[in-house]
Amino acid sequence: MSGARYWEDWQVGDTLECGSVPVTAEAIKRFAAQYDPQPFHLDEAAAQKSLFKGLAASGWHTAAMTMRLIVQQPMASLGSPGFDDLRWLKPVRPGDTLHARLTCLDKRPSAAHSERGMAHFLVETLNSAGDIVMRLTLAAILARRPAA
Amino acid sequence: MSGARYWEDWQVGDTLECGSVPVTAEAIKRFAAQYDPQPFHLDEAAAQKSLFKGLAASGWHTAAMTMRLIVQQPMASLGSPGFDDLRWLKPVRPGDTLHARLTCLDKRPSAAHSERGMAHFLVETLNSAGDIVMRLTLAAILARRPAA
Repeated sequence: MSGARYWEDWQVGDTLECGSVPVTAEAIKRFAAQYDPQPFHLDEAAAQKSLFKGLAASGWHTAAMTMRLIVQQPMASLGSPGFDDLRWLKPVRPGDTLHARLTCLDKRPSAAHSERGMAHFLVETLNSAGDIVMRLTLAAILARRPAA
Repeated sequence: MSGARYWEDWQVGDTLECGSVPVTAEAIKRFAAQYDPQPFHLDEAAAQKSLFKGLAASGWHTAAMTMRLIVQQPMASLGSPGFDDLRWLKPVRPGDTLHARLTCLDKRPSAAHSERGMAHFLVETLNSAGDIVMRLTLAAILARRPAA
């Protein structure tokens, strides 16, 4: 984890911008075919007639793409017990480029494990227009900086 | 949506068992390589040294597999605004077979759209031993049964 961002390196209120990923119709359909085969994620004509008014990525695909952007950061992540309050706020379309932003909401040492710390992060996924398309609050288990 | 389960067809407390999916090491690594490339989802030796004490599926992979099991049911789903309180409770391992269970927690008509209804579902994902490995509370937009 050389260069990793340890629990000690986060202060409440810190933000981290996490790169970007382009979204294609092909990728939307490929993910949907495997994990979320609903017509509005698979077929333009069906999607036009749906609430989405056009092809839109599975929300789980948006979440997975967001996870990829976060994991590409040098986080000293040990895992996560889960998250709260995920909201899909806008459809994700072919041609969008998504990026993710982390904001540290709180942190505390682990009571039971001196080598770990806990933190909550607001995760926001934004499209090219700067609209937030998804947000959630992630609980993270982070490694503490090893003694020198 | 012939045969679909409309908003009217759900009563609070109803459960639906949603089929099963086997989990392989290959599938765990393939999903992780694309969306969640952390060592404990990619490599047995690294996973042994992690909190997971062995190769474990990305929680987002577990969520995506669960979504697939739900979508394979004849639900008159129009989409979802999001969900609450996702918890990854146990590691998902190669050789596990997952199945999903829906429980209707509440339902109400849409105030603005007479052809839609809202409902919340407890989604539980279980392994072969019957342990709940993931749970979340899903908000669903369902189609109402069309007038005959």
